[in-house]
Amino acid sequence: MIGRLNHVAIAVPDLQAAAAQYQTTLGATVGPPQDEPDHGVTVVFIELPNTKIELLYPLGDDSPIRGFLDKNPSGGIHHMCFEVDDIIAARDHMKTQGARVLGTGEPKIGAHGKPVLFLHPKDFNGCLIELEQI
Amino acid sequence: MIGRLNHVAIAVPDLQAAAAQYQTTLGATVGPPQDEPDHGVTVVFIELPNTKIELLYPLGDDSPIRGFLDKNPSGGIHHMCFEVDDIIAARDHMKTQGARVLGTGEPKIGAHGKPVLFLHPKDFNGCLIELEQI
Repeated sequence: MIGRLNHVAIAVPDLQAAAAQYQTTLGATVGPPQDEPDHGVTVVFIELPNTKIELLYPLGDDSPIRGFLDKNPSGGIHHMCFEVDDIIAARDHMKTQGARVLGTGEPKIGAHGKPVLFLHPKDFNGCLIELEQI
Repeated sequence: MIGRLNHVAIAVPDLQAAAAQYQTTLGATVGPPQDEPDHGVTVVFIELPNTKIELLYPLGDDSPIRGFLDKNPSGGIHHMCFEVDDIIAARDHMKTQGARVLGTGEPKIGAHGKPVLFLHPKDFNGCLIELEQI
């Protein structure tokens, strides 16, 4: 059911420094910062040959990653995103297996303009999992 | 410099339950448990189309992930591994940029039989990064 790992998202306390580090220290291909006001984050994409890293920084007062950075001031891996072909079918299957979907349970349009859902980290070994319909 | 994301490693408190969940709830391709006594872990590989998830469970009393699970009893993302062509050149470059290498600083043979190094999470936004020479 789950397909490709679309991205790993890392919350960072200093977006400019983190982007420069991925570019200079790790030698990766780093895009420009992109404000995503509907999602309360500014994002920098790191393009790897097989997947992406997303650096996340809070945007606005209600950013969903503000609390994460309060608990993890150095930053940390915030979530990983798996691609699915049919997000409703995936959700319904996972719910029958006892997994909890965050929020209303209905997909929202994510930062990439595609339907997304998040699964409860307590049901998945402490990992926040995003599903994105491709 | 960094190439493919080779894997994301997740420390789990119950390996059998986590493997079953990836197979049944998430519908992924899950391999058999493999003991890695030299590394103090039992590993289950989840094969995704573009990368791997490694489920890690402590093996033996000196397991390097025992402390992580003590701090994170539900489990959590332990590290991510980037591929490099030349681990010595990568290490030396990263050190000139101020990054710290864990342990002796010399590559060890990792769980996949290839030279690996770990970078200090405090230098990389709270993320433990493994480099693996491919």
